[in-house]
This record gives sequence, C-alpha cells and structure tokens, in this order.
Amino acid sequence: MKEPYVSAEDKKFLKLALNLARRNVGLTGKNPSVGCVITFRDIILGRGNTQPGGRPHAEIMAIKQASEHHLLRRKEKINDINVYITLEPCAHETTSPSCAKEIVKFGANRVIYLATDPDIRTNGKGKLLMEEAGIKCIESSIYKNENSEILRGYLKQKKTGFPYITLKIGASMNGKIATKNGESKWVTNSLCRKRVQLLRSENDGILIGKNSIIIDNPRLNLREQFDKIENKPIFILDTNFELSDSENLLLFDKLGREKVNIITNREPKDVASKVSDFFKGVNFEKSVKEHGLLNIEEILKIISRMGVNRLLVEGGARVWTSFIKTGFFDEIVMFTGNSIINDSSISCFNDFLPLDTRLRDFPNLTLISLLKWEDNIEARWIPNS
Amino acid sequence: MKEPYVSAEDKKFLKLALNLARRNVGLTGKNPSVGCVITFRDIILGRGNTQPGGRPHAEIMAIKQASEHHLLRRKEKINDINVYITLEPCAHETTSPSCAKEIVKFGANRVIYLATDPDIRTNGKGKLLMEEAGIKCIESSIYKNENSEILRGYLKQKKTGFPYITLKIGASMNGKIATKNGESKWVTNSLCRKRVQLLRSENDGILIGKNSIIIDNPRLNLREQFDKIENKPIFILDTNFELSDSENLLLFDKLGREKVNIITNREPKDVASKVSDFFKGVNFEKSVKEHGLLNIEEILKIISRMGVNRLLVEGGARVWTSFIKTGFFDEIVMFTGNSIINDSSISCFNDFLPLDTRLRDFPNLTLISLLKWEDNIEARWIPNS
Repeated sequence: MKEPYVSAEDKKFLKLALNLARRNVGLTGKNPSVGCVITFRDIILGRGNTQPGGRPHAEIMAIKQASEHHLLRRKEKINDINVYITLEPCAHETTSPSCAKEIVKFGANRVIYLATDPDIRTNGKGKLLMEEAGIKCIESSIYKNENSEILRGYLKQKKTGFPYITLKIGASMNGKIATKNGESKWVTNSLCRKRVQLLRSENDGILIGKNSIIIDNPRLNLREQFDKIENKPIFILDTNFELSDSENLLLFDKLGREKVNIITNREPKDVASKVSDFFKGVNFEKSVKEHGLLNIEEILKIISRMGVNRLLVEGGARVWTSFIKTGFFDEIVMFTGNSIINDSSISCFNDFLPLDTRLRDFPNLTLISLLKWEDNIEARWIPNS
Repeated sequence: MKEPYVSAEDKKFLKLALNLARRNVGLTGKNPSVGCVITFRDIILGRGNTQPGGRPHAEIMAIKQASEHHLLRRKEKINDINVYITLEPCAHETTSPSCAKEIVKFGANRVIYLATDPDIRTNGKGKLLMEEAGIKCIESSIYKNENSEILRGYLKQKKTGFPYITLKIGASMNGKIATKNGESKWVTNSLCRKRVQLLRSENDGILIGKNSIIIDNPRLNLREQFDKIENKPIFILDTNFELSDSENLLLFDKLGREKVNIITNREPKDVASKVSDFFKGVNFEKSVKEHGLLNIEEILKIISRMGVNRLLVEGGARVWTSFIKTGFFDEIVMFTGNSIINDSSISCFNDFLPLDTRLRDFPNLTLISLLKWEDNIEARWIPNS
C-alpha cells in the first residue's frame, strides 16, 4: 500500500498527539493510551488523551475542549477541521459513546490516525463509519515505532492474549543481585531506583516471587514524583502459599491489601478458610503446578484477565529464570551497579538449559538502549526472534 | 601555585603535542610517550613524538624536522621560537643526548611543557638547565587529565614501582566468561574483539593464566590494522608449570617463543634442564607461592623489571580474582556480550572476600566510560580509592 501524503503541518500535530498519548502510558488500564488533537487550519482547537482508568477516550476529551473554542461558538459553520489521533477511533458504544460517531457529530472534515485498532469491535469499522459520513480518513504509518512503543501492551494483548512483559533486574557489575545472605540494599544507586519508579508507573501490574517478598519485604509502591499515581496491582507467585506465615508485609500497608493478588497452587477455598485476618482482603488465584513451579503461561492468562497489558517482573532469580526459560518476555531492563561481589552471591538467573548446551544455543538479545546513571548502567535488551 | 598564563595559540600547539604523544602509547617501552611541537610565531617548524622502543625522544625528532625548515636555513637568527612538550625534557645523557641541552643548542626562546618528569635524573633539572641558558620555561597544568592518561603507565611505575594494570574481561549479559565446558568463542562480538586489539596495542605486556592458555589456546598477537605493531611480551602465570605437557601453543607460532615468559614457582634450572625442545627459547621466571598461588606483588615486580609500564591482564577468572583481591588494578575494561547463559557457567570472578561480607564492604568502582558496540557494551571502571 502506498503511504498516503501527510504535510509537515500534519506531522507536527500527529507528533503532538503522540506526546499526549505518551503521558498516560501505564495509567489507562485495559484501554490503550491514545492522543488526539483537533485543529482548524493551524489553530489547535482541542487536545486530549485517554484518561486514567481508560475513559473518557482521547477523542472525547479533545472534542469537549474544541467545542468550547470561541471559533466554534460562532454561528457560521467552519470547514477545514482536522482530527489527529494515534489510533483509529472506536466504532462501538459501551459505557461511553463511540468516538467515530462523536467525530462525525462534531463535524470533522478530515481524520488522520496512526494505527488500525485491532479490537474486532472497531478494526476498520471506525474508519468506515466516518467515511460514510463524508469525512476524509487517512491512516498513516509515520511515527510507527514511537506509537508501537506507546501501544505495545495493548497491541500484544490483542494479538496474543498475553501482556507485554518487562523483566527488571538490578545486579552488581558481575551479575549478582544480592550477597549470599540475601542483602540487596542497595546493589544499584538511587538514580536507578528512580528509574524503577518510572517503570512501575508505565506498567499495569507488577509480578514478584514470594522469596523476594520474604527476603526484601519491598514496598512496591509509587513514590516521590510518582506518588500521585494510583499504585499498581501486585501479583505474587507463591506455589505453596508460604507467605501464610508472614506477619509484617510492608506492601500491605503501602498499597492496601486490595491491590495484592497471590497466585498459588492451593485451592482458593482452602486458603480462604485458613488465612489469618492478616490476609483478609487479599485476592487469591489458583494456578497449576508443574515440576514444583507454577505454570507461567497460565499465570499470564490470569493476569491478562485482570486487565494487565504491561507487566513488570521484579524478580527474583527463580522468577526471571522461568520467564527466560519459557521465552515469555519482551524486554529486559538491566540496571548494573558499581560493585564487584563474591561469585557465590545470588545470581540474576539460574541454570535454564542443559549443562552441555553450546554457546550459540543460549538466548541472544538486541541492545536497544544504553544509559549511564552516574556510576551505574541501564541497558535495555529485547530477545532476538 | 598560580597557573601561568598560556595563550589560545599556545593551547592549540600543546593539544597538537598531546595528539602526537597519544599516537605512540604502548609502543615506547620503558620510556613515556611524549609529543613535541616547535613553532616560530604561528608557523609549525617541527613535530615529533617518542619513537617506538623509546628513542629518539620527541624533542629530538621535532628539532631534526625544524632544523630543515627553510626559515631556519636563512643566515639571520630568528627569535620567538616556542617549544611545546607534553613532559619536561630530560636533563641526562645516556645513549642519546639530553633533550634539554638540545633545545638550548637549537636556540629556543620559550618552552612550555605539561608535566615535570618524575625521573630523578631529570625532575626539575631539565627546566633549570634551560632557564640557565636564558630560555623562558613554563610548566602548565592544562590538559592534565588527557596527559595523565597518556603517561599513566610511566607515572605509576616511577611513583610506585608497579605498572598501570588493566583487567580486560569479556562476559555474557549475566557475567559469565564461558560455558561450563569452557566454550568462550565468542561471548562478545567482533567489534569488542577489535577493541581488545587496540588495548593490546596500548599496553606494554599481556598477562594471562595457564588455564586460559590450555582451554582457549589464544594467539595473543596484534592483528588486522594493528599487524604492523610489534607483538607484546606475554607473561603466563603457571605455578607448577603445567604447560610443560603442551604440544601445540598457537602463541608460540604467532609471537615467537622469545616473547613468552612463564612465571612459575619451579626452579628455573630444574625447568631448563627438563623442558622439551618445544619450550626452548621461552623465558622462565621464578616467583614465590602462597596458599597455592603465585604472589601478585612479586609477579608485578618481575614484570616491571622487564620494562612493562602498562600491563593488560587478559584473565581468566582466577587471575582477575587475584588482582581484585590484592587491589592491584587500576582499571577494568568490561565487554558485555548479548547472550544469557546458564548460571553454572564460568564466572568472571570467584569468591574473594569472606562469605558473610556485607554489601558495603565489597569493592566499589567508578564508571569512567560507557560505549555501545552494536549489541555489546564496553564499560570502563576504575576502583574507588
């Protein structure tokens, strides 16, 4: 398909829509974070992005603002109204009106959007609806990479039924996440830990193993400049519900028990009848066990059903290794600290392939970004397909 | 001390002298790599740097070129001749004339240099000699960092009696240098291996453990764009001369046996009487043994005596760990490949502190440079003092 023409002016407004979309990544729940700009010639009438929780949609926000613009309050109808959106507007009405219909109603003349919505309720129907109303519709593939990054959780979920999975690792210069005694505070510096806050804010949920909870007692909340953002649901893998012995879990205080999901092999009714008051309010999900470990694919289905499109896996070694072994990961963010610690300390990964595996048969990665945070390193890797 | 005034013009010529010095780093043997520029006003009359092997000195090369300049072939004596040098010119005569005297003889009016020579035969005497002849001498500390980097092997050797030591490590993304079976070709990519060639060219000698020789059978020579450079002496640590069973060592073919030094705990006369013809021509040095390992300090003294100011330590894990443990290292160049390999593969370091050591008590490093070579990383670290 030939790429349709978009002017330099169009590109400028599309970029603005992208920036609006980027702002709410990780905050829009099951819905994608979308940006929308409405213009009359070179005048911006309205701007909007998907609101926290997923509604109202970006288009509704932009239309609302544009409708109040003084140019539109005049009697005479104005033409040459462009709508720039990072995703095809939805065609279906649920709890809120269809964006495609609202755009028609608003009186747009031309709509440019950057990706077709894979949701079968829309998928081309949004475009059709607008075209039937006489609106010129253009789907452009410019800024495809940037937009794919913003939409990746949503797109992957729609395409595969699994979330976009980021493994977040903090290790010493020689790949160790904690001393032999489990001491890990702090292998990386405060700038890296701020980056972890950003990662949490951009994801819909956090997965962690019970060992990390027991050893580190992490807070897992959003702090500092992120403290206005609603905390994310936490998914704790705990095959045999060993956390039942816990009496002090900081994350209960920091997040509230309603944010905590324990995925276990135990029967929920057994668990429910036995847990102490300390666990009242926590959600339990059952998953099958294989070779003593929970099944990653099933865990991911449970988490997907709960509306998570972007999942941050915070460890520890056993959990990361399970994701590497099963190939269920889309990105690794590796923070490297500036210490060298004993080799018998805790590694970031365990063995995951037979011991006689040749070098070429281990997984290979592509390095997509490399940053220096004072004396620490942040490297982002994606698997080679 | 107040920093003396140097003009923008002076700085330009000093920078040129620095660049000349940088070219021969690692090629000048026991002597420092120095650069020299001679000017008449803004005209460059001569340029020089320390020649491979250490002689002639930079000043002699620059004077030789300047003497042939047409401006100096005229009858009338010209004034306003400046000499820019990266190190105080030597005051002592050995196999070649004293540079300070040669500068006087040449007829310089003003000399600017960037560092006092710590060699006691010069140390201020070069300056004195020139000042007594009426030359204005300025020691400037501009470009101190750049110059210290060029001179660091020489300066460290003069100051401490030990070489500047760089540990060069190539590891997988999770800190492993080889699979459990010892397969290490290749953990890092070809760009990193080219950088290793550069590192070899910049150092005066290469140290390696006998295990690495036995397992990898490395060539350790300078290749590709570096193949015109004379190969470096190799120092193999082999406490019990286990290499004596070897029948095929690539480095013997690639470098010649005269470049190979085996440091062992065996008595040289015992070794000499017992070695097969295969080892004829190899130099043996004896060092003491402690807890089954050779003593690093003594090894470094032996290597220093052999004229090495910059030592590259190519591994493996046991050797690097000995240097980390004893604190005898000035820099670590860590190349990180893009694979994740089993945890039970070979690590870059072994244990080196008691198992209950706290995180804060492990060595900390400063990250001085970070480079991306396609999907690999080169990080340079120096120890925090």
